Amino acid sequence: LGFLVGDSEDDTLAVLSAELDRIQKRQDEVSFNSVTIIEKDFGAGEIASMDVKDRHGFKAQAPRRKAMARARNYLLYATMKPEHSWVYWRDADIVESAPEILEDLIAHDKDVIVPNIWFHRYVEKDGKMVDVEGRFDYNSWVETDKARKLQATLAKDDILVEGYNEYYDTGRRYMTREGDYRDDKDVELPLDGIGGVNIVVKADVHKSGINFPCYAFENQAETEGFAKMAKRAKYEVVGLPNYVVWHIDTDEKPR
Amino acid sequence: LGFLVGDSEDDTLAVLSAELDRIQKRQDEVSFNSVTIIEKDFGAGEIASMDVKDRHGFKAQAPRRKAMARARNYLLYATMKPEHSWVYWRDADIVESAPEILEDLIAHDKDVIVPNIWFHRYVEKDGKMVDVEGRFDYNSWVETDKARKLQATLAKDDILVEGYNEYYDTGRRYMTREGDYRDDKDVELPLDGIGGVNIVVKADVHKSGINFPCYAFENQAETEGFAKMAKRAKYEVVGLPNYVVWHIDTDEKPR
Repeated sequence: LGFLVGDSEDDTLAVLSAELDRIQKRQDEVSFNSVTIIEKDFGAGEIASMDVKDRHGFKAQAPRRKAMARARNYLLYATMKPEHSWVYWRDADIVESAPEILEDLIAHDKDVIVPNIWFHRYVEKDGKMVDVEGRFDYNSWVETDKARKLQATLAKDDILVEGYNEYYDTGRRYMTREGDYRDDKDVELPLDGIGGVNIVVKADVHKSGINFPCYAFENQAETEGFAKMAKRAKYEVVGLPNYVVWHIDTDEKPR
Repeated sequence: LGFLVGDSEDDTLAVLSAELDRIQKRQDEVSFNSVTIIEKDFGAGEIASMDVKDRHGFKAQAPRRKAMARARNYLLYATMKPEHSWVYWRDADIVESAPEILEDLIAHDKDVIVPNIWFHRYVEKDGKMVDVEGRFDYNSWVETDKARKLQATLAKDDILVEGYNEYYDTGRRYMTREGDYRDDKDVELPLDGIGGVNIVVKADVHKSGINFPCYAFENQAETEGFAKMAKRAKYEVVGLPNYVVWHIDTDEKPR
């Protein structure tokens, strides 16, 4: 296990340390082989301290994604060991996922694989509370000619971010808008960009140098840039539209 | 110290192990804090087994550079530790360099810095043997508009390599054609591509994810791609034209 705590002003580190201490002291089979916590700030405090509306606003996106990419790479290179075969990236704000998620995703034997990311939100409908099953992660997408043409007009330092159609429209096919957790969980969709909530990667991919660009890589950064880089290096990137992992509801307006 | 032995059919590993064992057992201050040898093949055996003429021929260059990039990244991520501040890349075939080279290069406090790479070759001239002071490393260069225009015509998977003017001419400014070791050793030349014989890098650059692309990064791979990636991420890349490190003479025809 590896954790990165950065640009934090709350008691994350204390709570995390106490919980890990509790788990690692257990005498049953629950404790982990090794646990590492990396504490490092990336000057993203200004972004982290914004409320969710500002933090997810358009202007904050490029610097935010670059800082997150650096943080991911620092964590990766402080914790990945030669004996590792797979790397599992899991955000702290996942609220629900299948216990056998690692086995499920590794069984596909892909270089890079991600599930679909949704969130629960209960709204009243005809006097009953109904789960809207909100679509969360718009960073997992299939590239389009429209987006390729748009990129041809951009400077090499420009970074595209999804979900800000008032600035530009990539017309990309978003995996999160598709899928149904009641259908075959193993259906695959080849992707060109991915989100970072839950990624399973063959360690060979990272060891060969494919990581999270903290700069504009073909006009993408962080996890979307990671997918583009992996594909440029001829690795396979796949999503599972029907395999749903539930993220916390960040109270954003549904798109 | 970290070594990678890959795609080798000679006794490199045995000789290296014996020498390291000898050095690490010394009771004076010569032994190193830690030594790691990584043994891994990258399927580049076909390239490694070519004679120097074929190996340095045009067709072998792109796969060769990609394999070397993967090897460098594997070595990096198996040996770099969180406590490291600088990473020094040094080829096995350097025959002569100043003992204080690390202090000299680190004193510049640059993100990425390389010296000039030449080789000794003695030829008879007027009855005396004279050192031609051959220019070795054409991978350290300053980008030109001509090369930028050339790149605009290339596919994203195409990889440019230097020194094959029969295929294309980048018109780049090669550091190795300049410089004089009798002049001020600290003169700096900002570079856009670098060679890999001798590189000093701030560890922060590597930890942030900047490494050796084993794919086409803006139409370059390996060390030249590394420099392009570092610059895209706004790191500073510098060469020292008057600071000469001597590479073994590979008996190639002088350019």
